[in-house]
Amino acid sequence: MAIETVSIVGVGLIGGSFGLALRAAGFTGRIIGVSSPRTIEAALERGAIDEGRPLAEAIPWSDLVYLAQPISRILEVLPEVSRLARAGALVTDAGSTKREIVERARGCFADDPFFVGGHPMAGKEQRGVERAEPDLFASATYVLSPPGSDLPDAPVVDEFVAWIGKIGAHVVLLPAEAHDKVVSWTSHLPQLLSTALAASVGKRIARKDLLRVAGPGLRDMTRLAESPYEMWKDILGTNTSEIEQALDRYIEELQALRNDLASDQVEQSFRDAGQLRRRLSTKR
Amino acid sequence: MAIETVSIVGVGLIGGSFGLALRAAGFTGRIIGVSSPRTIEAALERGAIDEGRPLAEAIPWSDLVYLAQPISRILEVLPEVSRLARAGALVTDAGSTKREIVERARGCFADDPFFVGGHPMAGKEQRGVERAEPDLFASATYVLSPPGSDLPDAPVVDEFVAWIGKIGAHVVLLPAEAHDKVVSWTSHLPQLLSTALAASVGKRIARKDLLRVAGPGLRDMTRLAESPYEMWKDILGTNTSEIEQALDRYIEELQALRNDLASDQVEQSFRDAGQLRRRLSTKR
Repeated sequence: MAIETVSIVGVGLIGGSFGLALRAAGFTGRIIGVSSPRTIEAALERGAIDEGRPLAEAIPWSDLVYLAQPISRILEVLPEVSRLARAGALVTDAGSTKREIVERARGCFADDPFFVGGHPMAGKEQRGVERAEPDLFASATYVLSPPGSDLPDAPVVDEFVAWIGKIGAHVVLLPAEAHDKVVSWTSHLPQLLSTALAASVGKRIARKDLLRVAGPGLRDMTRLAESPYEMWKDILGTNTSEIEQALDRYIEELQALRNDLASDQVEQSFRDAGQLRRRLSTKR
Repeated sequence: MAIETVSIVGVGLIGGSFGLALRAAGFTGRIIGVSSPRTIEAALERGAIDEGRPLAEAIPWSDLVYLAQPISRILEVLPEVSRLARAGALVTDAGSTKREIVERARGCFADDPFFVGGHPMAGKEQRGVERAEPDLFASATYVLSPPGSDLPDAPVVDEFVAWIGKIGAHVVLLPAEAHDKVVSWTSHLPQLLSTALAASVGKRIARKDLLRVAGPGLRDMTRLAESPYEMWKDILGTNTSEIEQALDRYIEELQALRNDLASDQVEQSFRDAGQLRRRLSTKR
């Protein structure tokens, strides 16, 4: 057993769920939480961690360090974590963008202790350890982005990958840059379209009773718009160039439809769109 | 009782559901279906109609004529229906756009028989009388667009409005032009954004395994993209100018976000979007 002590830094929805999921999957070692006193209290009550400690006391004792803070905090704390981590330990993170985090880690980490970037494709609109669930990762894709071309060859890495499987997630190995490009299309673009739609409709349909003249489509298409800006600020700030490119391509697609709503191009777009839906429904 | 015989012209999802809903709400009169032989057979089996007849045999006997075909067919058939309808009867339709239909009706109908445009805000991605349900209209908004400034003052109109209430829907009176403007934002724009998103993602994410790197957001935002082009051709063709304007405003909104992803404007859009969601959830 390479992993006996785990530190979860930032015990929110993801960090808390990771602790609960490890326990539910049979992890019998110690789980230390690093968070504000209020959050530690809630996480202890929820059973997501065994104890709370400051960063400097938690990291040196840990075989696995799980950074689950907002992206900007992960970037800030990485140098200190790399200094505190002990030989043989694995540091990983759960940030929604990977390029800046993995680049920063390349500058801090040498060979050992190890670093592997991570992104569990799980979550919900609500935040906080109070919403944490042991099965949040069930059936989810879990991207791992190593700083090099492959995962570090070490028992602690193999065991972490095994735990990801035990909590029900499916590992996809993807370089940080490729990850950030894919999620700009599959996650960041959908979010911004939803936000822009809700904001536009809110401006145009001012009479409250007229919102009754809406089918379920508007409701579906604006559900993501409930995500708070605070969750998205760091994502937009650390994947700016990819998001700009995706938006540019998307606006071109929309402009082409708009320029001739009676064209064959519109019919072709409906067919292409239906095809993507069929790919999505058979993606595994 | 002003309404004893109803003709449903086009017994698909909406027409068939209207027949089933009338029956479930206690309508004891006769329901005649006008459709292809295959559809009539399915509608009889489903219990949505009592008998099938050609248009020329059904309309002269009907107190209520319910046109539930595609928009282009409604436009084609209106002159003939206005000639066939008997004095005291009400002709209404269930088309998703109202301006062209109500304009056409103004040219065909004098005072009596009566015409009132309609749009039940109900439906699903699937079509056909096989999917028809008696509670399709439950809790739905039902827009009525009279050719004049108010509903015609006639017992048959009052009784039709009462039946809409009995099948569980809520009437909103809206001039055809206002209806078409509102739905360009609440229905047509969401559809085109979803189609354009699915089409774009399909082009960019060609590797099948990379679609696994998508959260539930992409799935939600592309659900509408399953709607077939055949359902949308007439809508895009009869509400072109409003849809173009909505797309232009939306593209401007998106372009503003894209031009400075770190700006206060982005934060403001997230706040505006959240506000629209709160309005949607308390809209009644």
